[in-house]
Amino acid sequence: MALQENALAVMADELEFLLFDLLDVQKLTERPRFADHSRETFAAVLRTARDVAGQHFAPHARKSDENEPRFENGKAVVIPEVKEALRHFAEAGFSAATADYEDGGMQLPFAVHMGAGALFAASNIATKSYTSLTAAAANIIASFGTPDQKRLFERPMREGRYFGTMVLTEPQAGSSLADVRTTATPAGDGTYRICGNKIFISGGDHEMGENIVHLVLARLPDAPAGVRGISLFIVPKTLVNQDGTPGERNDVALAGLIHKMGWRGTTSAMLNFGEKGGATGYLVGEPNRGLVYMFHMMNEARINVGSGAAALGYAAYRHALDYARERRQGRPVEAKDATQPQVPIIEHADIRRMLLAQKAYAEGAVALCMFAATLIDDKHTAASEAARKDAEDLLEILTPIVKSWPSQWSQETISLAIQVHGGYGYTREYPVEQLYRENRLNAIHEGTHGIQGMDLLGRKVVMNDGRAFELLCARISASANRAIGTPALAEEGRALVEALARVRAVTAHLTRQMADGKRAEVLANASVYLEALGHVVVAWIWLDQALCARKLLDAGDPRQAALNGKLHACRYFMRWELPRISPQFDRLEAGDDTWSAMPDDWFH
Amino acid sequence: MALQENALAVMADELEFLLFDLLDVQKLTERPRFADHSRETFAAVLRTARDVAGQHFAPHARKSDENEPRFENGKAVVIPEVKEALRHFAEAGFSAATADYEDGGMQLPFAVHMGAGALFAASNIATKSYTSLTAAAANIIASFGTPDQKRLFERPMREGRYFGTMVLTEPQAGSSLADVRTTATPAGDGTYRICGNKIFISGGDHEMGENIVHLVLARLPDAPAGVRGISLFIVPKTLVNQDGTPGERNDVALAGLIHKMGWRGTTSAMLNFGEKGGATGYLVGEPNRGLVYMFHMMNEARINVGSGAAALGYAAYRHALDYARERRQGRPVEAKDATQPQVPIIEHADIRRMLLAQKAYAEGAVALCMFAATLIDDKHTAASEAARKDAEDLLEILTPIVKSWPSQWSQETISLAIQVHGGYGYTREYPVEQLYRENRLNAIHEGTHGIQGMDLLGRKVVMNDGRAFELLCARISASANRAIGTPALAEEGRALVEALARVRAVTAHLTRQMADGKRAEVLANASVYLEALGHVVVAWIWLDQALCARKLLDAGDPRQAALNGKLHACRYFMRWELPRISPQFDRLEAGDDTWSAMPDDWFH
Repeated sequence: MALQENALAVMADELEFLLFDLLDVQKLTERPRFADHSRETFAAVLRTARDVAGQHFAPHARKSDENEPRFENGKAVVIPEVKEALRHFAEAGFSAATADYEDGGMQLPFAVHMGAGALFAASNIATKSYTSLTAAAANIIASFGTPDQKRLFERPMREGRYFGTMVLTEPQAGSSLADVRTTATPAGDGTYRICGNKIFISGGDHEMGENIVHLVLARLPDAPAGVRGISLFIVPKTLVNQDGTPGERNDVALAGLIHKMGWRGTTSAMLNFGEKGGATGYLVGEPNRGLVYMFHMMNEARINVGSGAAALGYAAYRHALDYARERRQGRPVEAKDATQPQVPIIEHADIRRMLLAQKAYAEGAVALCMFAATLIDDKHTAASEAARKDAEDLLEILTPIVKSWPSQWSQETISLAIQVHGGYGYTREYPVEQLYRENRLNAIHEGTHGIQGMDLLGRKVVMNDGRAFELLCARISASANRAIGTPALAEEGRALVEALARVRAVTAHLTRQMADGKRAEVLANASVYLEALGHVVVAWIWLDQALCARKLLDAGDPRQAALNGKLHACRYFMRWELPRISPQFDRLEAGDDTWSAMPDDWFH
Repeated sequence: MALQENALAVMADELEFLLFDLLDVQKLTERPRFADHSRETFAAVLRTARDVAGQHFAPHARKSDENEPRFENGKAVVIPEVKEALRHFAEAGFSAATADYEDGGMQLPFAVHMGAGALFAASNIATKSYTSLTAAAANIIASFGTPDQKRLFERPMREGRYFGTMVLTEPQAGSSLADVRTTATPAGDGTYRICGNKIFISGGDHEMGENIVHLVLARLPDAPAGVRGISLFIVPKTLVNQDGTPGERNDVALAGLIHKMGWRGTTSAMLNFGEKGGATGYLVGEPNRGLVYMFHMMNEARINVGSGAAALGYAAYRHALDYARERRQGRPVEAKDATQPQVPIIEHADIRRMLLAQKAYAEGAVALCMFAATLIDDKHTAASEAARKDAEDLLEILTPIVKSWPSQWSQETISLAIQVHGGYGYTREYPVEQLYRENRLNAIHEGTHGIQGMDLLGRKVVMNDGRAFELLCARISASANRAIGTPALAEEGRALVEALARVRAVTAHLTRQMADGKRAEVLANASVYLEALGHVVVAWIWLDQALCARKLLDAGDPRQAALNGKLHACRYFMRWELPRISPQFDRLEAGDDTWSAMPDDWFH
């Protein structure tokens, strides 16, 4: 049912290929922050993740789905296996994996941590979510909190004793955070009274830890309207005394649970702050800078969404591949003799088509996310300022793609995995239908697909006079040229060169149009741009994987089948996937206004 | 929650446009079989369907999903609302809508019946399924049964007293019916003893009627291997005496229920035949002709799947459109002033993009299915033999597309509807997530997507020296030329002419290759061909809708907004959707063998 240990072992091998062969993360140990680590310790982290995920996360994935948190006596009750899994996660050190030694952390590179995270997500993304939310909250306090806030709130989160949440959304303010109405009134003692209703708060209530640290967006009195008037507050579920002992219950009430299509193991809560007069909150950083702090963590949160989506897609591919090798059904087109035994369905061309597409989407998505994770490391720890700046710029422009591409294409991967299973794939007796329901959330949370498109074309492409965009093009171009110089990959290299030329031309055209006062018209098609550029970026990531595989094969690497599979999947992507961009760029270039030009009442 | 009555009213208007304006079904009343009918009686049927669906089907759609049939004491227990809804359905005459007067039917055209069916499917496809399965079983008996079989089994199904099922699949024989193992042994009295295990039997058990008539595929002793050795049997759940009174319980046992991702209101059963020695069965027609009889009904069953999928997509579009007009969130790109009120999200370009795509997919799919339904009518009742033959050929070649295109693209429609709803769309508090789970089945049952591709390219395109294909091209060409002669639609007409030229060239190439011994190689890409030709066919259907709308507008028709919406959606389809085929046909023409050439062990 759940992802088997052997499937997790193959996934760990895949992550080792990506981290060590493709991305060379062992070189990070040359940097002071990671000097105590080695390739061996990184590999050990992956091994531990594989074990903990296989033993404590995967087994209750279906049970969590079938027994979603219950609302009882004002509390959210979660099945006991989740708490147990999270205890093992914390005991293995993952709660503080990337944190500083002085904060109780392991100072692991983000990339290695995200590799480990992919194993947890593939096993049970709902249970894993509690850890991601907590890490995100802890990271914000680590970056912007006072020493006391770090001591009282961040530290116990790193220890796995407290959990964390991100409390942004309100019923009338979903994607539009400018419309947050929750208020924060100074209490006169340096604390604030928080009042307001929040919705879709993942991990918003449960009894699995000693406390929950809510990071809440709210408005101070007289704050300016819009996004520049939002501040960030720590609002613990239970107040904490200065010595760290628990105080009174804070004025935070669970108003109800939301029932989702999937991802049911993660509580999604409606929370009321201040029903009894005001929840006690502590300002983080400066007033009115709340969104800036949130967005400081947003790249990581979005990459985490992409990585989770990639892991779900990868898990579905593994299930489909195992099923296709075992299930016997039908006979080849050329040999319809029904007296002959049926063949494993992997022998059928259409099944192979679906498996190869899944492989290309799933491995492409995981590789994209791991690459992005190394950019986070480089942004913080690369040796030169120039390298750090480059990493930051690349990260900025890639983030919307890393968030949205795996979300979109893993859904296709999982759908194909269902299709490979036939009628069985549609039943809850097999795991793929659950993955399909879980992943559908990823194109919505942490900024919808449409929001990512606007971010990419409206901000990231044009920022700093297109510096990030140019850098991305230069990197893609370098890979394509290396491939052209490699006989076995020349066809793929040329395809990418051609695609890149198209990207450059269309982007220059759109940028000019936006500068000429047609910003709204151009941004109307931003989602299409996001999808098209996403396919080019993943084609590039595939070419890099193929170049790496080719080099390893030439050097006599024993992983023949896996490496040849990489070459073939790259070929698939270039031949079958990359050409999808051509009609998209045609319409973008034409300045198509089909949907904008449609009057409201013609939608009928 | 469920589809509102006003949404059903708009859907009924849409069906009137398709049936009366586009497809001219009122002209069917010139044929003897339909002579008692008129446009008014057809419209009354739609009105009745709208009322019964709105009052008795829609209200329990969510309850059915949340309370799937329970396995209790060897029986499947279904919530009472389903039985009640089916009673109203039968009382309104829908159980026998298309049947002959002499069989208690209304002799309605298939097209009108399918229009009514779409309203039931949009309201509650799980409850509607019981009626479709029963009608399919009744139709087979009507066509191939003895007078006694018709009297004892078909008639009570038409009256809504008995239900019917189609019992094909076995655990080891899913898509591969050649491998059916269930046996039928002559009992010496003209009946047979049926023994075997069947799976995925929709409506396979419940207590909602007086009886269930199973139509079972099984093998006679010494039957040849493969599909030519399969016979068809009537195996009632309860034996029926010659006077129609119930006899003993037959040897058919409910072995278990299957738990599905969606479509939970329809029981999906594992049935064991002959646990006590053999279930009594009655041979339908001649021995070893079972699959021929089944496939006689398969076109209708497949078109019914497509029509159900289209209805689910259409329902999702209506939900999304209503939500987009009501939900206020954010502000236009040009005016980010947060002191201004938020706007309905239909004002956002990206929401309009998603709504227009939904409209194009949903209305395109419904129109395609209604057109196919008229071909069923023409095949049986067109005035000349030539016209009947043309209809039959067109129906044959279109069936795989009518089955698969709506199944595939309604999933995209529903996904976009979820996206329009944002986080709310992912919750079970809103209806779109259920539609997403239900429709995912449609690409699987009654022949998977891959099976449809093989049927289209391997059989339908080449049958009778390509007669059906040529006929289809001629029809498409005629519409395109009419559009070119209509100034407002010339751009769209030219786009379709170009696409058709591509279809012809690629098809000729593939046909030659298949004749040259490369059948397996060509059919390896059959699914791609199916998808590409499907888009061209729906582009044609859109152009026909636009031509019709243009003519009505020019004649001063008052439905201005709806008809202009048709023109705009056609434009969208031609500009944004049709170009998707270009890279697909490129690869088909190149004879691409990417997935076939991949060795098994490279899938890693």
